Amino acid sequence: MHYVKGLVCISCQKNYAPEPDRYLCSSCGENGLLDVEYDYSLLQSEWSPEQLQSSTAPGHWRYLPLLPVDPATPRPPLRVGGTPLYHNRALGEELGLQEIIIKDEGLNPTASLKDRASSLAVVKAREAGNNTISCSSTGNAASSLAGSAAASGLKAVIFVPERAPGGKVAQLMIFGARVISVQGSYSDTYELSAASIDRWHWYNRNAAINPYLMEGKKTAVLELAEQLNWQMPDWIVLTVGDGCTIAGAGKALQDLRELDFITRKPRLLGVQAAGCAPITRAWQQEAELQVCAEDSLADSIAVGNPRNWKKAVRAVRDSGGIMINVEDEEILEMMKLLGRKSGIFGEPAGVAGLAGIRRAVKAGIIQPREKVAVIITGNGLKDIDSARQAAGEPYSLAPEIEAMEEVVCKEGLD
Amino acid sequence: MHYVKGLVCISCQKNYAPEPDRYLCSSCGENGLLDVEYDYSLLQSEWSPEQLQSSTAPGHWRYLPLLPVDPATPRPPLRVGGTPLYHNRALGEELGLQEIIIKDEGLNPTASLKDRASSLAVVKAREAGNNTISCSSTGNAASSLAGSAAASGLKAVIFVPERAPGGKVAQLMIFGARVISVQGSYSDTYELSAASIDRWHWYNRNAAINPYLMEGKKTAVLELAEQLNWQMPDWIVLTVGDGCTIAGAGKALQDLRELDFITRKPRLLGVQAAGCAPITRAWQQEAELQVCAEDSLADSIAVGNPRNWKKAVRAVRDSGGIMINVEDEEILEMMKLLGRKSGIFGEPAGVAGLAGIRRAVKAGIIQPREKVAVIITGNGLKDIDSARQAAGEPYSLAPEIEAMEEVVCKEGLD
Repeated sequence: MHYVKGLVCISCQKNYAPEPDRYLCSSCGENGLLDVEYDYSLLQSEWSPEQLQSSTAPGHWRYLPLLPVDPATPRPPLRVGGTPLYHNRALGEELGLQEIIIKDEGLNPTASLKDRASSLAVVKAREAGNNTISCSSTGNAASSLAGSAAASGLKAVIFVPERAPGGKVAQLMIFGARVISVQGSYSDTYELSAASIDRWHWYNRNAAINPYLMEGKKTAVLELAEQLNWQMPDWIVLTVGDGCTIAGAGKALQDLRELDFITRKPRLLGVQAAGCAPITRAWQQEAELQVCAEDSLADSIAVGNPRNWKKAVRAVRDSGGIMINVEDEEILEMMKLLGRKSGIFGEPAGVAGLAGIRRAVKAGIIQPREKVAVIITGNGLKDIDSARQAAGEPYSLAPEIEAMEEVVCKEGLD
Repeated sequence: MHYVKGLVCISCQKNYAPEPDRYLCSSCGENGLLDVEYDYSLLQSEWSPEQLQSSTAPGHWRYLPLLPVDPATPRPPLRVGGTPLYHNRALGEELGLQEIIIKDEGLNPTASLKDRASSLAVVKAREAGNNTISCSSTGNAASSLAGSAAASGLKAVIFVPERAPGGKVAQLMIFGARVISVQGSYSDTYELSAASIDRWHWYNRNAAINPYLMEGKKTAVLELAEQLNWQMPDWIVLTVGDGCTIAGAGKALQDLRELDFITRKPRLLGVQAAGCAPITRAWQQEAELQVCAEDSLADSIAVGNPRNWKKAVRAVRDSGGIMINVEDEEILEMMKLLGRKSGIFGEPAGVAGLAGIRRAVKAGIIQPREKVAVIITGNGLKDIDSARQAAGEPYSLAPEIEAMEEVVCKEGLD
């Protein structure tokens, strides 16, 4: 916390001390999201890329000076971050580029980028003196919270709507979370979780209103920059749901630029599913957010009422970037294309960025010679049904070599 | 290949040149599995733990001097290995130990230890001048082969029995494998794959008969040893299906001891599912293998006719270790216990080792103060149905705070 100056409201600029359970501006309420501010001068005088290079901290904790946690607070033992980065020509060419840089966040402990935020949440809960931590979600945020809490010996209370898929619920139960299946809509679920958090004073792991979680998410981009030896690409591409992940990317770029670790900021390309794109609309029209329906198979980014939209729009705008929408069919096509060209299995929300890249290249927004990095945010094993829809059916044969001859000929396998 | 002396038959000791497509002894046939032999003296004079420490090769390729591949052959770009190791007291205590050391192999690119073998297979296929590689399997071997082949631009032909779960087939299809669903039993499937590999001269990725694949698997234990700074535990615990993984562990221990990287070998504890334990039986009775039924939910280790049983029994015996069986109920219990105490989600075959440890401690075979390392071989996201069976059901509530009060009280969350 040495380098944290405080929290500041993005609406009225009021300052707050960085209390671990300070979530929103007390004047502006839900319009008053808070930003964590760092003392960049002090940081720059005490920390450098060379010092970072000699760090032996596991995973994303190597960026501790840029994280709003007390170094003395126990951290969850799971290795979060340290995910691989690949340069891929074959996939790049399919999208109209010379190559593409892929960061596979599906190799985090619970198989998504959200582990970066949940690990911070668990530390802040401890700092707040809280042994119970709660959120409402059906997806990656829930499983990552359940995993980080289990690893730390904390209790997690997770509210899911009754329509939540059985498999995701099972993952939460395996991690020992107390899972409440709410007989009602997602709104009912959110309301019950908010009332319960308030009533029993649990720690609130809601990435949209908890200012510390975005700081965890930003480590994906800090890591990408370090893996590229601080030579940033022209574009960083991310899918956008509640807006926290791309806002975190924007914060990482701000940090790196302020500290002179990088000499220029890449542009951010934010990609939403066409069936649920309220942030793209707010960005295009320079208008307030309008809540919309959630009609996409990319469930992790189908957020009709994204509470972090302002920070997301700001991050895209500050980078000179754009927002773009893609159809579900394109997302399914990209699941298949990514798998075939890279051996990476991404979930729908994880691969939508690739469809956005192809559109942006076709529209002349991204130039073929530009360097483009995409973050695959979650593992496809989390959504096998979509994979089946994307990938088609196998050959079905009698166990006779004659039957194989036809397949071999058709597929050119001889 | 600099350090590879050749291949030797485990039955008649006949020697062979290390041709990439040499699978079995030509005299002994399927009884003549081959071992890769290294020139340990030469290796020891040219390689040391200090040199290893300065390696910047990704993942398990840091052990290249101990791998039977030509350093000049292009390697698949996926980062295989480099999986995390955790020391866990809470889980250790549940099993009757002071702590337990856990290696999470579910964080490999396609979510299992099998990636270590498939990455080798892809390299050997290239060395054999072969662009198509094939196996029959419904599980982790198939998906890892499909992923490694996709990343390398090779073709994979995978034979599955028609009962193969749709989700696993979808994963193969996403990676662009040519998947043949065979209308018949697993035996029919195996026979059609063998006939096809023979007929069309594809590269054979069958861990049981291909001597190079075990060399890939051994890197899990090489890595564990390095992560423990060469201070080996008293026991290394692995689940056993076709026998290749534990045989690979035995080979790693042999390598490390011959090279003086470690001063003593740990004992191997091999764990099979009680419903399919032909290797335990062969070990106990010092007899030939008897093929048995495959009656366990731990599908990845339910192998009734394990073709690598001799190397497995040899590895356990050479280490002074033992084989033990566990029931399916214990496996499900361990999925839950591991998740709750560590935040790691293991598949049934991945966690069966924990049940074996508990039995061995209770039987006085493992002492409470001994150091025990267990390898969690695959990610639980691959088998959500078993997770649901293990973890039970969530609370189902109306969206009213009064309903929550009862849960909070019962769970002690206030």
